[in-house]
Amino acid sequence: MVFSHPSSAISIQFLLVCLSISEMETTTTSSTNSTTRRPILLIHGGAGTISKSVITEKQANQFQSSLERILTSAYQVLLKDGGNALDAVTEAVRLLEEDPLYNAGKGSVFTSAGTHEMDASIMDGRDLKAGAVGGVGIIRNPVLAARAIMEKTPHVMMIGKGAEDFIRDKAPEIELVDPSFFFTEHRYNQLLNVQKENKHSIVLDHSSNPIKVKEEEEKELKEEDKGYLSEKKFGTVGAVALDINGNLAAATSTGGMTNKLVGRVGDSPIVGSGVYANNKTVAVSTTGTGEMFIRSVASYTVSAMMEFGGYSLEKAAHETIFTKLTEIDGDGGLIAIDRDGNFTMPFNTEGMYRGYIQEKDKPNAFLYGPNESNLNK
Amino acid sequence: MVFSHPSSAISIQFLLVCLSISEMETTTTSSTNSTTRRPILLIHGGAGTISKSVITEKQANQFQSSLERILTSAYQVLLKDGGNALDAVTEAVRLLEEDPLYNAGKGSVFTSAGTHEMDASIMDGRDLKAGAVGGVGIIRNPVLAARAIMEKTPHVMMIGKGAEDFIRDKAPEIELVDPSFFFTEHRYNQLLNVQKENKHSIVLDHSSNPIKVKEEEEKELKEEDKGYLSEKKFGTVGAVALDINGNLAAATSTGGMTNKLVGRVGDSPIVGSGVYANNKTVAVSTTGTGEMFIRSVASYTVSAMMEFGGYSLEKAAHETIFTKLTEIDGDGGLIAIDRDGNFTMPFNTEGMYRGYIQEKDKPNAFLYGPNESNLNK
Repeated sequence: MVFSHPSSAISIQFLLVCLSISEMETTTTSSTNSTTRRPILLIHGGAGTISKSVITEKQANQFQSSLERILTSAYQVLLKDGGNALDAVTEAVRLLEEDPLYNAGKGSVFTSAGTHEMDASIMDGRDLKAGAVGGVGIIRNPVLAARAIMEKTPHVMMIGKGAEDFIRDKAPEIELVDPSFFFTEHRYNQLLNVQKENKHSIVLDHSSNPIKVKEEEEKELKEEDKGYLSEKKFGTVGAVALDINGNLAAATSTGGMTNKLVGRVGDSPIVGSGVYANNKTVAVSTTGTGEMFIRSVASYTVSAMMEFGGYSLEKAAHETIFTKLTEIDGDGGLIAIDRDGNFTMPFNTEGMYRGYIQEKDKPNAFLYGPNESNLNK
Repeated sequence: MVFSHPSSAISIQFLLVCLSISEMETTTTSSTNSTTRRPILLIHGGAGTISKSVITEKQANQFQSSLERILTSAYQVLLKDGGNALDAVTEAVRLLEEDPLYNAGKGSVFTSAGTHEMDASIMDGRDLKAGAVGGVGIIRNPVLAARAIMEKTPHVMMIGKGAEDFIRDKAPEIELVDPSFFFTEHRYNQLLNVQKENKHSIVLDHSSNPIKVKEEEEKELKEEDKGYLSEKKFGTVGAVALDINGNLAAATSTGGMTNKLVGRVGDSPIVGSGVYANNKTVAVSTTGTGEMFIRSVASYTVSAMMEFGGYSLEKAAHETIFTKLTEIDGDGGLIAIDRDGNFTMPFNTEGMYRGYIQEKDKPNAFLYGPNESNLNK
């Protein structure tokens, strides 16, 4: 078993996550017998080497206020009469895709060919229905395409031009855009930087094993690029929600990895890896080194540990991130809500853009690890 | 919970599967403490309404001898000095792809656009490494492409033209072919038949919910087409193996569903759904209504039940097919070998092309349900 952090740091981190959950439990409806639940929404905007040493104060403030704004806005969906978890995660991820700060939708990173290929997924805990797109380039909001595939076809996953053609023909309400829509200068600079550093390599990411960071390369980067480059590493967005009727849903969306091979698909559109929702157990969305989340079937592992092993949400989520993911050198985190309204947001990286809301207009957003004081603000 | 069969039939089926397993256990090395294992290879060639009423004797004999030939040949890999499970499943699936009887590689079904889009995957139980391709059209053996992606990139999954370009550039040992290579007359006739029956529908398959069979449509089919049409429904091939060193591996490959939407990807290239292998637990390959195997994360469910719930292989595989898959109206089956050499091949359809071999030149192949006598031949 290989940990990226000293085990003492992990213990502290886990302890604080648990404390955080305990605090929630006192304010949420946690009984399995109650027929209504206090609606809860969690979102994430990616994980990685997010710390005060690499993120400028200005960037931190941008992320903080963006997360709070999106939580507040998408939570309205849960409060509406008939508002349900599926609609809430759709709206939350759509808003995350719209914000160029995040690597999803507008703001997606570039492939090695200078193009954009986005992946997204959604799952409904009521009936285990799911939809996903992989490698799409002209759909403004990939999460809406994933939902359309779930609702309008007998399929779960569609990819590439076939998916785009389907959306054009059968879901005209979903906006298609010119590929230039996805151009953003900071992502283009990321591509140039990464290609400069890795010109002879098809090893595309700078994260830990098996996609190694070379320390000397990291040092060459301009200070102002470090935040974006670190954020690139695990750029994914996602949302999980519990609605008043006890329904769970999850959605995930990403632009992938800067300089990725054309055609590479990560865990974000993979049911069981990047997304999972089941009213009997839990809703999960992940972010991190996608390949390791695929190989560890990370999202569904949380659910399976709860269903077949009787684990608590906290234990299942912790084991998934700190044992299953970490032992294959995976980096990242997840957000999860269980059917009783318990929630958790563990990660084995320095930080994860994340937040929760369970009371109107009272969003709670975090960037750094639990050693930062804002976990209990 | 909805069963496609009367429960009595299922009980008999399960009983016979168990008997079959018990029989195997007496002849396999089943101790967790032994350092070497008797090599075992299982293959499948798809599941569906395979019964004596829809398959002609000639077709049955073709499948029987093909399965026996492929088992015999691929088993040689396991017997060689240094022969390992990963090489054996690669070779078994390659041979299944080469035989036009099966819906994978040569013999793949047509999309609604009259093209071929194939999916394949492979997973190594030693280190949970995996590779997959989705929606590829010019790669003669998609399973070899999946393995190249596993071995030559930090990625797990690549799709479409990006995957094809990668193979052309970085794996020149893998044969690319003209799309016309995949033309077979019986598959083209299937497409014409299905399009005639479903011309106003994007509901593409004839199986049970949510891809309904209309009985009156079924009756219109020519008798001789029924075998191929039923075989089409769940056309996938796969292999699982245990080698002398206790390593497990799994591989799966498919042409998808006749008349599928361009861009549709089923469970075959999805780690956790169509394929899973972990030396700690089990190797699994599935075949059936792909979307339901995705939604139930079927392959990994077998492993998770064993790992987190302490289930036996038989119980885990049975619950996966007859509870988890069946309760969302999924049809199909799986083949699985656990780390102790126990194996099972359950399915909730009338038949599944399948077989096992654990002794040189002694293949055992089956087509129909356990109610047929050849299970214990």
